[in-house]
Amino acid sequence: MSELLEVIRGRRSVLRFEPDPIPEEDLEKILEAGRWAPSYANSQPWKFVVVKNPETKRALESLVERIMVFRPGRVALSGPGLGGAPVVIVVVVDPARDPLHPLEAGAAATQNMALMAHALGYATFWAGVANREVEREIRKVLGVPGGMRVVAVLPVGKPAYTPDPGQRFPLEALVRQEKFA
Amino acid sequence: MSELLEVIRGRRSVLRFEPDPIPEEDLEKILEAGRWAPSYANSQPWKFVVVKNPETKRALESLVERIMVFRPGRVALSGPGLGGAPVVIVVVVDPARDPLHPLEAGAAATQNMALMAHALGYATFWAGVANREVEREIRKVLGVPGGMRVVAVLPVGKPAYTPDPGQRFPLEALVRQEKFA
Repeated sequence: MSELLEVIRGRRSVLRFEPDPIPEEDLEKILEAGRWAPSYANSQPWKFVVVKNPETKRALESLVERIMVFRPGRVALSGPGLGGAPVVIVVVVDPARDPLHPLEAGAAATQNMALMAHALGYATFWAGVANREVEREIRKVLGVPGGMRVVAVLPVGKPAYTPDPGQRFPLEALVRQEKFA
Repeated sequence: MSELLEVIRGRRSVLRFEPDPIPEEDLEKILEAGRWAPSYANSQPWKFVVVKNPETKRALESLVERIMVFRPGRVALSGPGLGGAPVVIVVVVDPARDPLHPLEAGAAATQNMALMAHALGYATFWAGVANREVEREIRKVLGVPGGMRVVAVLPVGKPAYTPDPGQRFPLEALVRQEKFA
């Protein structure tokens, strides 16, 4: 199934969105993709907070960063913001449900949703949560209990531009045979 | 693209594999899927260690756990092991490349590879790394530098049985509208 590789390669971080709302049917497919992520001993430590309210989005917007990457290692912040996305999915996890690997589970769920969104013609980016203080503020805005972790703030919407094809280190630089060194 | 949702839902943790080796071409597609994961400011903090050597696999096998899940919350360990997988991909990340979100990036890469493997007819499971001591031992076996984190030990191979369809909490239990509470 080489289509999957196209979806995986084609998913790019897009930083500006059209304001068009997302039909509930599509949103449900995106969330459903998150639901089927793997987690340690199937603990499913995640909750998905779906934010459409403009006021809440403005509050989140002031906390997270859009990060522009020109090429690996060359980074610029484009300033705070959610790029005008009609929907923002905030992925939070409860370490009480999985003390060992809650971030990994939440990240797998986020990646599933980012892929599904892209496959449906939407774009996303993992908004930058720059430190634990920002994370705390996001929890406050959404009323998330203190023990939980914010794994991802994921704006979703129709892309307002066509992203460049993206850059990655070549496979030879990433893959080690048998031992790390 | 509803096929993606089928791949995502169809990917199940399989705990026993056929011994058949994986053609390099397929293995490369799986690693390529990992390469295209997102990461904070495109830091790409991951390395993928591909283990086929039986001795190294035996050493890893004695460290990780296969976890059987009967239904959410009902868990049993099936004992240590990698299920006889011909290939084990160990995903490690370097917090020096991304001090903020290295685990999330490694988990997104792992999920990409798990999905790609499934789409190609292989199965995987995230082997259980039960604590930091086990993680340290895995690093030793593979010669991974002390500062790096082991995100996932991912056995890959043809499934030796057909897994059950899996269970997840219903979407209503996971999704919150606008606020967490």
